Amino acid sequence: MKIAVDIMGGDHAPEELIKGAVAAAEHNPSLELILVGSEEVFQKFLPVLPPRIERLYSHSVMAMDEPVDHLRKKKDSSIYLATSLVREGKADAIVSAGSTGAQMAAAVLLIGRIKGVRRPAIVIPYPTLEGDKVMLDGGANPDATVENLVDFAILGNAYAKHLLKIENPSVKLLSNGTESHKGTAVIVEAHQRLAATKCLSFDGNIEGRDMMKGGYDVVVCDGFSGNVALKLTEGVASALFKLVKDEITATLPRKIGAALIKPGLMNLRKRLDYSNQGGAPLLGVNGISIICHGSSKAIAIEHAIVTAANCVERDFIHHLADAVSAYTAEQSKEVVK
Amino acid sequence: MKIAVDIMGGDHAPEELIKGAVAAAEHNPSLELILVGSEEVFQKFLPVLPPRIERLYSHSVMAMDEPVDHLRKKKDSSIYLATSLVREGKADAIVSAGSTGAQMAAAVLLIGRIKGVRRPAIVIPYPTLEGDKVMLDGGANPDATVENLVDFAILGNAYAKHLLKIENPSVKLLSNGTESHKGTAVIVEAHQRLAATKCLSFDGNIEGRDMMKGGYDVVVCDGFSGNVALKLTEGVASALFKLVKDEITATLPRKIGAALIKPGLMNLRKRLDYSNQGGAPLLGVNGISIICHGSSKAIAIEHAIVTAANCVERDFIHHLADAVSAYTAEQSKEVVK
Repeated sequence: MKIAVDIMGGDHAPEELIKGAVAAAEHNPSLELILVGSEEVFQKFLPVLPPRIERLYSHSVMAMDEPVDHLRKKKDSSIYLATSLVREGKADAIVSAGSTGAQMAAAVLLIGRIKGVRRPAIVIPYPTLEGDKVMLDGGANPDATVENLVDFAILGNAYAKHLLKIENPSVKLLSNGTESHKGTAVIVEAHQRLAATKCLSFDGNIEGRDMMKGGYDVVVCDGFSGNVALKLTEGVASALFKLVKDEITATLPRKIGAALIKPGLMNLRKRLDYSNQGGAPLLGVNGISIICHGSSKAIAIEHAIVTAANCVERDFIHHLADAVSAYTAEQSKEVVK
Repeated sequence: MKIAVDIMGGDHAPEELIKGAVAAAEHNPSLELILVGSEEVFQKFLPVLPPRIERLYSHSVMAMDEPVDHLRKKKDSSIYLATSLVREGKADAIVSAGSTGAQMAAAVLLIGRIKGVRRPAIVIPYPTLEGDKVMLDGGANPDATVENLVDFAILGNAYAKHLLKIENPSVKLLSNGTESHKGTAVIVEAHQRLAATKCLSFDGNIEGRDMMKGGYDVVVCDGFSGNVALKLTEGVASALFKLVKDEITATLPRKIGAALIKPGLMNLRKRLDYSNQGGAPLLGVNGISIICHGSSKAIAIEHAIVTAANCVERDFIHHLADAVSAYTAEQSKEVVK
């Protein structure tokens, strides 16, 4: 199996990307990798290629905040070239920690969408007291329609089932109240549609205050609220760590106390650290494109490459396509009735 | 000055509402209060009225999750009767911790809107590392239009200026990125309008991750995202307290450490405790209606009554009306050009 890795994108590119890829190849003898990056980067950081690692030179990078439409002009960019490898059948999957918008655009342009999916979505691992849950869309579709939200639910459900191996995932809809009439007009209608389908187990609305408690597997939301919710969670956690630190070191007894509990706090910090997370596939495109958090370190990149391999092995794209067509079939029956 | 208090609404009604009102009257000799509640409640909890406290009997309550349109049939409910006192000039302001939807509906129905305001908004005190900031809308308008968002900005700015006495408030717009092109179509257009007006200091978009850091005075958002953001902040904070507690008591040295830092953690918890906060006025209605958090205890109710008195003393409604008409005037000049 061959996996393409864009080593030019992300806050810690290229070193951490290269380290992660080299470790993944070393630890997984069945993997072959194609690293995509500039000649200078290879000369400086990886002059000699380790076993089962190839390279492909790129000549530009899609910057983190660069308008996505530049992609069409940057056909020599690392993300364009890496995604092209999947299109051409030279790689089975692609992994990147660069601009999410550019990765999404490259995937839609070069690999295309799964039949029946109007807009692909970004899956976000959302940290809860019970461990990570699935949240989507994480930011690709700020203006999601009712149909988009239903698609996200179908895709997220299939992701939880076939990749996370959860038998009957509990799917929730993010809203400003648990009652079915709460939310924007779009949310209220999406709630009705999700309650009506037999293609997944819809467990109603979830409020912001219950997100971190767990008790669900998948949360569906538009890309705007999803992105606000995710970044808010990161921000609140980091502000609270600062507050806790300030409060517990304000007096001498507390300083001693703080020293004693430091290992516990470090554990906690690690549990919430996005830089260790392993990425998630773009859901709805017709191939495997794994999105990593921009702040990913080597260990996260290694995990993401393993996730990519799992997706390929488990024939994940076929499962997704089956789930979408099952829903489409259910809908056309409804219309016939 | 007379202030009406609905003692029937809120998680801790009626006891904490009554305690808070009695304390407010005791501590503020210039205040007169009219408590609105059922005869049974007065008989049980306040058989003898303290000085400067009157009572008005109500015969029903708008429940927390009751559809707002029931209000028209419940003209004997505590929130309807308390708001009517303001309409009839028998009270200068009304304070409630009951159903926010019902309080908003009663205010719009009985007191009306400020001229030029299409939809009133709920102000939420948002906790940051620098202290509380102003967030609106907190949930009254899930489907906010561009015009609604601009109104919220004008109202929030006037609130920060005239009630919180901040000279030149920094106003931000909640979005999924700091760049002006990020957000839903509505957010992107609202950004352009806010950047164009001279009626306030617009400081661009703010992301979820920066909300708790501070560095602003007012955050404008639609009621859906605002409500999700607020409840998420509460939920993340309470989940993290649980995590911190679990981590720091996992081993004996940590248990000792935990005992030493307990006062610090209690301080911290208090800083983030909504049940101590003092409520905020509904912005955009043509009279003072103070909304308290449903979990308000006596101290919060006392603070809310003082806030109501401040609003009346500072002629807050006139300041709001002036701000709205200044913006309307600026807009009609734009059209003439």
